[in-house]
Amino acid sequence: MTGLFITLEGGDGSGKSTQARLLTEWLEGQGRSVLRTREPGGTDVGVEIREIVLHHRGEIAPRAEALLYAADRAHHIATKVRPALVRGETVIQDRYLDSSVAYQGAGRVLERGEVRDLSLWAAEGLLPDLTILLDLDETVARGRLDADNKRFDRLEAEKNEFHARVRSAFLDLAAAEPARFLVVDAAAPVDTIAEAIRARVATLL
Amino acid sequence: MTGLFITLEGGDGSGKSTQARLLTEWLEGQGRSVLRTREPGGTDVGVEIREIVLHHRGEIAPRAEALLYAADRAHHIATKVRPALVRGETVIQDRYLDSSVAYQGAGRVLERGEVRDLSLWAAEGLLPDLTILLDLDETVARGRLDADNKRFDRLEAEKNEFHARVRSAFLDLAAAEPARFLVVDAAAPVDTIAEAIRARVATLL
Ligand SMILES: Nc1ncnc2c1ncn2[C@@H]1O[C@H](COP(=O)(O)OP(=O)(O)OP(=O)(O)O)[C@@H](O)[C@H]1O
Ligand SMILES: Nc1ncnc2c1ncn2[C@@H]1O[C@H](COP(=O)(O)OP(=O)(O)OP(=O)(O)O)[C@@H](O)[C@H]1O
Ligand SMILES: [Mg+2]
Ligand SMILES: [Mg+2]
Repeated sequence: MTGLFITLEGGDGSGKSTQARLLTEWLEGQGRSVLRTREPGGTDVGVEIREIVLHHRGEIAPRAEALLYAADRAHHIATKVRPALVRGETVIQDRYLDSSVAYQGAGRVLERGEVRDLSLWAAEGLLPDLTILLDLDETVARGRLDADNKRFDRLEAEKNEFHARVRSAFLDLAAAEPARFLVVDAAAPVDTIAEAIRARVATLL
Repeated sequence: MTGLFITLEGGDGSGKSTQARLLTEWLEGQGRSVLRTREPGGTDVGVEIREIVLHHRGEIAPRAEALLYAADRAHHIATKVRPALVRGETVIQDRYLDSSVAYQGAGRVLERGEVRDLSLWAAEGLLPDLTILLDLDETVARGRLDADNKRFDRLEAEKNEFHARVRSAFLDLAAAEPARFLVVDAAAPVDTIAEAIRARVATLL
């Protein structure tokens, strides 16, 4: 595979979509082909799965939830991401396996290593060339989303304590794989973050 | 867990539903509490998943399909089957992990051991006390379903050659775990099969 695979991770409201858009625009401005995508829900099958995971009334067993995210991932990577990478495109993806580990593994009752193995099985071992972690205090993030008047789905409606565990899980993951991760302070201004991301991506082009 | 967990396996049209019903009636006639259930689709979440797996327009990546079945299983076992077994009920289940291994593993491109491991992770290791394999030539089975004027879903519409591989995969599974399996000739009359099943179940009560 010749294309570059870049993922953005972080809690809700940390600025992933904002930075994915800016990075995509910058790369396209250089004449590169970019696939900007997301998980869950980056494919037609994924949209149907996302509907179950986020909006099902009533509890979903923790392993079932992890498996649904993995199914979305398997389909998304096999049918959309790998083909784009094979064509030499740059893939900018909002959330990937680190989100699964942080949310299902840290937030719920599953073992982190199990969730990671499941994701890697789903994705046939595909790891990003670069993962940008937008690190932000969960109360600041919540304030941003409140300001957006955003409607909360099942996961976002969890308590602050849960989001604090997720944040710390993301930081653990970055510490364990420093070469793959760029950790940025997501409380900084949008342009400052965008510049830090461009500087790192430039070294990979 | 004190309840007995019995699964019925075999190709489409082999008589699983017929025998599940007769066995349930027989056990209930003895005053036992029986949960008769099925996979996929034995829960509310499962019905939504089953809708995706069976009726999605277009291809589903093989790993995504296996993961969707595993998600259905995880939710079904955690929320319905285990609680019933803990209450001491007998669970009669139409299809379980052997179907996943036979259909996804043998029929598709995945390794059988991987599909089995995935199922067991989903079900937290729960294996049936008894698995009844209704073994039937695939053309005979097809004739039965045609006679029923049954509408075919995605899997059933596969070619005879696929169903022959599934049949042989089921027989391999039974041969590998003879203590767990009862293999019956599903071309025999309904009552003959029901009697053979009752005789074996009686030894477990
Ligand atoms: N660096 C920043 N400083 C202040 N506000 C920001 C910053 N980045 C993004 N925002 C604002 O915060 C809100 C959430 O940003 P964005 O949608 O990019 O986050 P997200 O991580 O994609 O959230 P979600 O997980 O809900 O998709 C938006 O209103 C956005 O304009
Ligand atoms: N032993 C048998 N001999 C002849 N016909 C049978 C026998 N058992 C079941 N049938 C008939 O075959 C058809 C399929 O049976 P049944 O629905 O029980 O199979 P099944 O394995 O549950 O199928 P499916 O996989 O489609 O759910 C029905 O018309 C049923 O009456
Ligand atoms: Mg976003
Ligand atoms: Mg049936």
